[in-house]
Amino acid sequence: MLNQTADLDRVFQALGDPGRRVMVERLSLGPLSVSELARPMAMSLAAVVQHVQVLEACGLVRSQKTGRIRTCSINPGVLQSAEEWISERRTQWERRLDRLGDFLTETAGNPTEENQ
Amino acid sequence: MLNQTADLDRVFQALGDPGRRVMVERLSLGPLSVSELARPMAMSLAAVVQHVQVLEACGLVRSQKTGRIRTCSINPGVLQSAEEWISERRTQWERRLDRLGDFLTETAGNPTEENQ
Repeated sequence: MLNQTADLDRVFQALGDPGRRVMVERLSLGPLSVSELARPMAMSLAAVVQHVQVLEACGLVRSQKTGRIRTCSINPGVLQSAEEWISERRTQWERRLDRLGDFLTETAGNPTEENQ
Repeated sequence: MLNQTADLDRVFQALGDPGRRVMVERLSLGPLSVSELARPMAMSLAAVVQHVQVLEACGLVRSQKTGRIRTCSINPGVLQSAEEWISERRTQWERRLDRLGDFLTETAGNPTEENQ
């Protein structure tokens, strides 16, 4: 899920805002209505709605309207895609370190002819 | 490492650009000089330098100048901090689902008096 570059751009850009991260943090504890989401935030309801729209546009959050209440919930698959992108880079770096370690151990164990 | 909100803001904002993600991807395979980093990129050297500065400012990349060559390498600790922020949110969400599952199993196993 979410392999396209443009999607990852939007997910990381969305997470680059502290207010949106607080929203993701609260929604990871359970679904909330937009007004519940807005209650502890030091911003207008309009600003909260805008942030929710950014989170929905990148897929991190889904919302559903029942009557007059819009309820938001987290989309864990999109969170996972972003996490995987980072963890793959970290794993690549660690593998490189392991190969470097193996090479150094091997070199120390098998001195070249010039050194013998 | 990297617990401050402003730092995470900058890390996620830095990862929100596809060109910078390509640079992080290539640097996770090993250190590169700025000109090696620039070679396959469809952008000017000046643009690459600017992206490197953004990556350095948020701590994702470190660079060192030896003579006239500036070599860039990844900072895995900062990658890990961003990964941990996301994985903690995902874990919270999964724990909530588990609790919900336990509650439903319990409720199904112990019908209330009204239902007996």
